Amino acid sequence: MKRVYNFNAGPAALPKEVLKRAQQQLLDYENTGMSLMELSHRSKEYDKVHTKATTLLKELLQIPDNYEILFMQGGASLQFSAIPMNFLAKGKQGNYSLTGSWSEKALKEAQKLGETHIASSTKETAYAGIPSHLELSDNPAYLHITSNNTIFGTQWRDFPSLSPDVPLIADMSSDILSRPLHIEDFSIIYAGAQKNLGPSGVTVVIIKKEVLAECPENIPTMLNYQTFAKNKSLYNTPPTFSIYMLSLVLEWVAEQGGVAAIEEINKKKAGLLYNTIDQSDGFYIGHAENDARSNMNVTFNLSTKELTTAFLAQAKEEGFVGLGGHRMVGGCRASIYNAVPLESCEALAEFMDVFRSNNR
Amino acid sequence: MKRVYNFNAGPAALPKEVLKRAQQQLLDYENTGMSLMELSHRSKEYDKVHTKATTLLKELLQIPDNYEILFMQGGASLQFSAIPMNFLAKGKQGNYSLTGSWSEKALKEAQKLGETHIASSTKETAYAGIPSHLELSDNPAYLHITSNNTIFGTQWRDFPSLSPDVPLIADMSSDILSRPLHIEDFSIIYAGAQKNLGPSGVTVVIIKKEVLAECPENIPTMLNYQTFAKNKSLYNTPPTFSIYMLSLVLEWVAEQGGVAAIEEINKKKAGLLYNTIDQSDGFYIGHAENDARSNMNVTFNLSTKELTTAFLAQAKEEGFVGLGGHRMVGGCRASIYNAVPLESCEALAEFMDVFRSNNR
Repeated sequence: MKRVYNFNAGPAALPKEVLKRAQQQLLDYENTGMSLMELSHRSKEYDKVHTKATTLLKELLQIPDNYEILFMQGGASLQFSAIPMNFLAKGKQGNYSLTGSWSEKALKEAQKLGETHIASSTKETAYAGIPSHLELSDNPAYLHITSNNTIFGTQWRDFPSLSPDVPLIADMSSDILSRPLHIEDFSIIYAGAQKNLGPSGVTVVIIKKEVLAECPENIPTMLNYQTFAKNKSLYNTPPTFSIYMLSLVLEWVAEQGGVAAIEEINKKKAGLLYNTIDQSDGFYIGHAENDARSNMNVTFNLSTKELTTAFLAQAKEEGFVGLGGHRMVGGCRASIYNAVPLESCEALAEFMDVFRSNNR
Repeated sequence: MKRVYNFNAGPAALPKEVLKRAQQQLLDYENTGMSLMELSHRSKEYDKVHTKATTLLKELLQIPDNYEILFMQGGASLQFSAIPMNFLAKGKQGNYSLTGSWSEKALKEAQKLGETHIASSTKETAYAGIPSHLELSDNPAYLHITSNNTIFGTQWRDFPSLSPDVPLIADMSSDILSRPLHIEDFSIIYAGAQKNLGPSGVTVVIIKKEVLAECPENIPTMLNYQTFAKNKSLYNTPPTFSIYMLSLVLEWVAEQGGVAAIEEINKKKAGLLYNTIDQSDGFYIGHAENDARSNMNVTFNLSTKELTTAFLAQAKEEGFVGLGGHRMVGGCRASIYNAVPLESCEALAEFMDVFRSNNR
């Protein structure tokens, strides 16, 4: 079986073991005589899968009992609207920390629904950094951050500490489960699954129970977090196969030793690539500021457009997939989420060295 | 390989050939060295899948060029809100024809967003029928119908003919692709995939291009139909695997001879079960009125609760899955969507006869 070095930014690589497991079970899930996709979402067999996904996520991220875990649809992009619709009350301001296109999009959706305020931004430095300080508005409804910025390759190392009356909301689509978290610091964490959690099609929301009381009744049922909390995310048919894949990925993370062990491997993977950049005498130019570098997305350029093009073309020939930068910014990007094996990063680092030798 | 007789109401049976195909390709999609789930949604390989799904649906349902085909998320339940958000302008009324719980839910979401009007309802007869006439409001924004009612087992045979200035909107979640349609009669058709189209997680929307101009700019981007139309349903990451499965199911329908051929088989399947009910001397009691009977969901009761319970228990032992009625109404229901083979219906009809002989 052919497998390439997959550095896609999302949908991204999945653990081979997970795919094999899904393949084995595809026509007959655990002796039910049906594919998991053919099971009723109200069946006890599916309920086990749904519950397993919740339980494993709770264990792996040490999510306290006063939080709900929800499975929604529509990706982070729909959360951008759901957050202000539920939590941006009149007279308050949705505060946004801008660290890239995704936080800009989140802000834009909030602007349609209420008052907003930019608490910090690194736009002036082409989003190469993470803000070092915040200026909140007078009456903040919440502060929204994007924990990892796939396009620019930056990541919050330490999260802002806020006074307890300001809820912290984080879009963690591209780094959830990549490192241990202190969940209590957040009121809401949400993440589209397609980077670290599974295939696209399911959005995980971790939400403090006490904020659920704020959800207004007159908003669309499917955008009200209470609907999902009250119905165990089974108000309507959930994306059952995506949640099943999520449960398999979570099992795999547990088998790797959990999130702390995964973080160590992630640091090693990112370290390999950043070292290759730093030791290239300027042949490779990292985009992110050193203290803002993401362990999930390594963004870099070569000194000329021609060299970048040649690098990407040759990399493709050698079986490296997904190394082109986002269509907005160009250049190169290696997305090295949890499921990208160390060997892929070793192979890439080696290729980068060889390409440099041949082209300097 | 064990396979049961799957009569689940949704998620429901999928064609075995489709599942086998997906299984073969699960780790290495068309020699890409990646699972389809691991492909970027911006890759040319995924684009082929996405385009194939659109093209096949267009061919199979003979969708004219002045319609867009969109792939959304959130199921019919999110469409219940998106429809009025986009098309229920001030001063107009969203007209609803009530034929069961799903149309009630659609109405409820519209009531949160604007003026509504009940144009017809069969609630008084426990939703056993389909309305024979309509009374529209003075200034209707649209008429919304549910083409097939999974819970009560009724189906619109002929769709209401309206004056050309009243858009007809249909939730076809549970019977799309089961019979040929005259698409031009509808402004919008939408359907969650998990009955006739594929696994859960993707919602198909067929929408007349001219109505897209009405979508207001100030609504959430992810609920605006224009977003999906302008971006070929790739504004954000779509549920790629669900769309891939949809493309395989559509291929399978084409292989069966298309929608007209499928309709013939569906009539035969439903006929078998309705005949069994009608010839049972009242042992089995159909819920739906004869002229409103659904070819997708056959709902019936036995004369006592005890008999119904015994029937369901014995059916389960014999390998029939999903025959319990919806938790709201009880009784029995056989959901016989496109992918349920004729043999499953033959086996069920036979079982029903044997059970009657043994228990009268």
